[in-house]
Amino acid sequence: MIRFQNDYGEGAHPLLLKRLAETNMEQTEGYGEDRYCRQAAQKIKEQCALKEGEVHFFVGGTQTNLTVIGSVLRPHQGVIAADTGHIQVHETGAIEALGHKVLTVPEQDGKLTAKQVEEVCDRHWKDASREYTVQPGMVYLSHPTECGTLYTKKELEELSAICRRRGLPLFLDGARLGYGLTSPASELTLADIAGLTDLFYIGGTKVGALFGEALVITRPELARDFRYLIKQKGALLAKGRLLGLQFDTLFTDELYFRISQEAVEKALLLKAAFLKKGYSLRYDSYTNQQFPILPEKDRKKLEETYGFTFWEEMGEGKSAVRFCTSWATTEEAIRQLVEDIEAL
Amino acid sequence: MIRFQNDYGEGAHPLLLKRLAETNMEQTEGYGEDRYCRQAAQKIKEQCALKEGEVHFFVGGTQTNLTVIGSVLRPHQGVIAADTGHIQVHETGAIEALGHKVLTVPEQDGKLTAKQVEEVCDRHWKDASREYTVQPGMVYLSHPTECGTLYTKKELEELSAICRRRGLPLFLDGARLGYGLTSPASELTLADIAGLTDLFYIGGTKVGALFGEALVITRPELARDFRYLIKQKGALLAKGRLLGLQFDTLFTDELYFRISQEAVEKALLLKAAFLKKGYSLRYDSYTNQQFPILPEKDRKKLEETYGFTFWEEMGEGKSAVRFCTSWATTEEAIRQLVEDIEAL
Amino acid sequence: MIRFQNDYGEGAHPLLLKRLAETNMEQTEGYGEDRYCRQAAQKIKEQCALKEGEVHFFVGGTQTNLTVIGSVLRPHQGVIAADTGHIQVHETGAIEALGHKVLTVPEQDGKLTAKQVEEVCDRHWKDASREYTVQPGMVYLSHPTECGTLYTKKELEELSAICRRRGLPLFLDGARLGYGLTSPASELTLADIAGLTDLFYIGGTKVGALFGEALVITRPELARDFRYLIKQKGALLAKGRLLGLQFDTLFTDELYFRISQEAVEKALLLKAAFLKKGYSLRYDSYTNQQFPILPEKDRKKLEETYGFTFWEEMGEGKSAVRFCTSWATTEEAIRQLVEDIEAL
Amino acid sequence: MIRFQNDYGEGAHPLLLKRLAETNMEQTEGYGEDRYCRQAAQKIKEQCALKEGEVHFFVGGTQTNLTVIGSVLRPHQGVIAADTGHIQVHETGAIEALGHKVLTVPEQDGKLTAKQVEEVCDRHWKDASREYTVQPGMVYLSHPTECGTLYTKKELEELSAICRRRGLPLFLDGARLGYGLTSPASELTLADIAGLTDLFYIGGTKVGALFGEALVITRPELARDFRYLIKQKGALLAKGRLLGLQFDTLFTDELYFRISQEAVEKALLLKAAFLKKGYSLRYDSYTNQQFPILPEKDRKKLEETYGFTFWEEMGEGKSAVRFCTSWATTEEAIRQLVEDIEAL
Repeated sequence: MIRFQNDYGEGAHPLLLKRLAETNMEQTEGYGEDRYCRQAAQKIKEQCALKEGEVHFFVGGTQTNLTVIGSVLRPHQGVIAADTGHIQVHETGAIEALGHKVLTVPEQDGKLTAKQVEEVCDRHWKDASREYTVQPGMVYLSHPTECGTLYTKKELEELSAICRRRGLPLFLDGARLGYGLTSPASELTLADIAGLTDLFYIGGTKVGALFGEALVITRPELARDFRYLIKQKGALLAKGRLLGLQFDTLFTDELYFRISQEAVEKALLLKAAFLKKGYSLRYDSYTNQQFPILPEKDRKKLEETYGFTFWEEMGEGKSAVRFCTSWATTEEAIRQLVEDIEAL
Repeated sequence: MIRFQNDYGEGAHPLLLKRLAETNMEQTEGYGEDRYCRQAAQKIKEQCALKEGEVHFFVGGTQTNLTVIGSVLRPHQGVIAADTGHIQVHETGAIEALGHKVLTVPEQDGKLTAKQVEEVCDRHWKDASREYTVQPGMVYLSHPTECGTLYTKKELEELSAICRRRGLPLFLDGARLGYGLTSPASELTLADIAGLTDLFYIGGTKVGALFGEALVITRPELARDFRYLIKQKGALLAKGRLLGLQFDTLFTDELYFRISQEAVEKALLLKAAFLKKGYSLRYDSYTNQQFPILPEKDRKKLEETYGFTFWEEMGEGKSAVRFCTSWATTEEAIRQLVEDIEAL
Repeated sequence: MIRFQNDYGEGAHPLLLKRLAETNMEQTEGYGEDRYCRQAAQKIKEQCALKEGEVHFFVGGTQTNLTVIGSVLRPHQGVIAADTGHIQVHETGAIEALGHKVLTVPEQDGKLTAKQVEEVCDRHWKDASREYTVQPGMVYLSHPTECGTLYTKKELEELSAICRRRGLPLFLDGARLGYGLTSPASELTLADIAGLTDLFYIGGTKVGALFGEALVITRPELARDFRYLIKQKGALLAKGRLLGLQFDTLFTDELYFRISQEAVEKALLLKAAFLKKGYSLRYDSYTNQQFPILPEKDRKKLEETYGFTFWEEMGEGKSAVRFCTSWATTEEAIRQLVEDIEAL
Repeated sequence: MIRFQNDYGEGAHPLLLKRLAETNMEQTEGYGEDRYCRQAAQKIKEQCALKEGEVHFFVGGTQTNLTVIGSVLRPHQGVIAADTGHIQVHETGAIEALGHKVLTVPEQDGKLTAKQVEEVCDRHWKDASREYTVQPGMVYLSHPTECGTLYTKKELEELSAICRRRGLPLFLDGARLGYGLTSPASELTLADIAGLTDLFYIGGTKVGALFGEALVITRPELARDFRYLIKQKGALLAKGRLLGLQFDTLFTDELYFRISQEAVEKALLLKAAFLKKGYSLRYDSYTNQQFPILPEKDRKKLEETYGFTFWEEMGEGKSAVRFCTSWATTEEAIRQLVEDIEAL
């Protein structure tokens, strides 16, 4: 069985493991105050072209999301998100467990729009009874989205503009950020994202690390006392160096970007094969996740050899499924799968 | 200006005020442990035909809802409600502030159905990734609904049945329960409701009291340690006797039902007048709230003399509005309004 | 049985009931936006000599405490209080239920001192590991304290000064404030308290009202979005006028102060009687609560006729008990009790 | 500088790193549903002599503590702990952030006693006003304690007995459990602990792993829906295999016990050296943490070469400090430090 279910099925890129082994017996400060964390943060800030702001490292995405959102909002505020947003559908109510409502808007290819954010704000602030409803307090989006789609530069600029006008911190979940930045369809650089958002994270777990997400807080006032929050949520790793070292390695010689790009290229080979075969796609993704719509017979055939994820019933005996590539996907696996698609 | 905006514009039914004055200098236990609370609870249990269970008194509805829901759910559970449910739209995220998600389903005339509850449960329990989503933990509904509509006996029986099969406590918000029980369209008695739900409250604030809601917990295991919860949420009134005395009076000689019925009759006079005039209704309500759809001109005309609430734009220059009656609505006010409707 | 257990055993001062009856059929706005609330707030601000700031009305003390503290603190912050503070010992963990730790210091006659606050801050800010501990975020005190004692003007000035230097909002719980302000031992006026604290409340429940606490927020920035918080905590009374009207009446012709002063005078007659008889006192209170230490025999004797509260075992067969007076305590009751003390 | 500050200054025991490298390219299920997690859980249950119950893996201790405590308690309940307990002093209010009070008792050599637990329960349940206070809902202790001390078998049996009589789940924080079980002073086996507690965790972060704690829930009813809670708190590691593999390795061929025992032996060499030199000890520890009380001059001298932690001022110019050993402490480092102690 060759697994394409997700992008966290293997361990870490070998270079990261190698660095962990090399530095294993070094004695360092705990809790993220070691030189590797400092070095990694410095490299990330440089690549983000940030002069101020802070970088903090987390083990996982849900942890990052809940720590950030809990830090930013006051008790009567909620976070605006697409109704397919990860915080809305796949974190067991982690945001509500902090005390905050997720204010959803209907997704558009997995994205939300500046117009939707504006409407939520208008509806709230024009309502004479607004004190009986949750106040919009920030905006959450994923890039790439859970559907593999990408915000255009214009879309993110508009979102950024409306957020700033309305005083809403804009938080970008970049669990798969590498696959977005290196997509041929990408219009955004890391520095663009740093310039347009208030907080965002660079995903490591799904992009070559054993685990780890690097949160970038671009506005210093949002970083106030942030380490207290990390500790309170149980998110401060004792051996923080493990996070620092992995991100230091990923952001040396562009490793993060190189492995992301390779994974995207492999995914696009799959996409081309599905399209060539005449299948339609649930989302038009240019990143490492692909969502072909398969007839049952073909789906079953592929399931004999490959692992992939059921996504959604599409009617007429067809269903959308998800194939993921990653830094660990081999050329051999892709070649074989492309052949098997062609042979369907 | 004659106000029909809501059913809490005046103080209390005069009989309640009279009893408060008569007993004012009596010395009683505090915090709901006085004889008036005991008496009122006893009368309510009798009218509910309950042999076990408990009655607790609250000052207001949001307070009742949040104390009940916070007591019933475990941290990873949410409460199923219609998307127009009061807890979803008009309590400033009080449920989320406790840590729980509201799991909404599309309202059907302000109601949710047994089928919807079953679907939410099925979707959850059939999902292999269910641990990453919020588990349905109870069901919340309002009767009458926020739209003035009523559950039929069959609808409530079906909801009760599915809730019991799925182990979900069923909680009925009866902020306007009197107006439901005494509607000519009502198929349900107080004893029916006590038999079909696990927790429900009998609204006093909107039905003749200065303030107060009587929560009935029909299953003893759901009442365990309940007074701790009331206190923790700041909901334990020092002079609890005020609640006991008011409900004791309301449940003596059927006062609660008599004043509710009169208010409903008055509302139905309005309904008849609007229908006779050819207006359609946003909801087909047989309770104390009426929702005519008025052209702008007529709405403006009525606004010169009457207070009522804008509800929703209906297009073509029309809007739905809400008129409420209550124990305090005078015959004179109704007669005048009916005449003015006829004269539009 | 003549009850001296507490100061909330009866209903309301007759003048308040009279006003409730007189205005009962008036139609007003709900949720505290009526003219009585505005009028009461205005009168209170005047007596506080406040040009800015806001007044909000609550039904009870725990509700007020939890709404205020939840509004002021960020998630990693706690509230400093004496270990006998009401929020620490008698609110079923309401503050923790919001997510915040109570940072206790040992009481000194029920009070905390500026020095203690400074020490808590110093210990925190000098600790290299402070991020792993709760950050002091505000200070809570009661005046009079739960022990009937009073802060001197100097003590409150020092507390205010240290709080301002350290950026900690100072919140004063005035559940029995009237009995403090009118004590012969009082060094503080309402305007002094408004000038020295950032938030405080004027208790009504224990001082003549059916229920009600008037929260004064002296610094506008602490009042931001405050009504959202009140609603979310279930603390926004539908018929808010009941609160406005009661406080309007209490703050007309100094009613609040007159009834407080009478209660204190009666309490001091008891104090004198106990002292004359040779009993010692658990606390040297000059307010409406008195804490004599009685031998068992005398305690039992008094219990035949009077209700009062056991406070604490004092050893050698003696125990401290509490007698409370209030606006409702009659001269006859005091005279009889004084005689019975003398006859012990 | 040779570091004795803590037991998490290096990476992982080399055997664990080796296994991570060997299995790196294997594709496994995510989120702890892989074969390594199953294998590790099975081995742990066997060594605990448990027929039922569950094992779950966490990345860190605070995360484990907050997930467990939040899962066990109802909203009005608190957790009993020594006032030196980690949850009370070093987790930034993580327990309160869940909504729960820590009910502290004075530590006795870092421990709490069955008698103290009984007293807290008695005080609560005998209090007529208990509903206004937090109900004891579970007991938390550390073994070894934060002070390096150990519960005797009798002490833990008594605690277990009182907890069972009072219906309080007993939770043992074993962040340094290995150092306790292999201490020459230990009276307890892993199976003893599994038999006497309801939940406990076996610490990996401080005992040879890169990170990781293995939570053992000995009573199935406490494990209900537990994975939802782990996910909600952001504690479900995507590549859960990393935890499974490390614990599988630690619990193969007794690696966990062997490396713990060596670290304890090294610590006891230090202890002997300090005692021989005439220093007294802050706590009489037989585990990997040692707490000598040093005169300032000697402390400064040692600080030239060694890293260790200031613990507490002891007066007369002396201070208690902490030296930790671990699996990574070399014989050479110990020999050198012993010599330097002797030379003081």
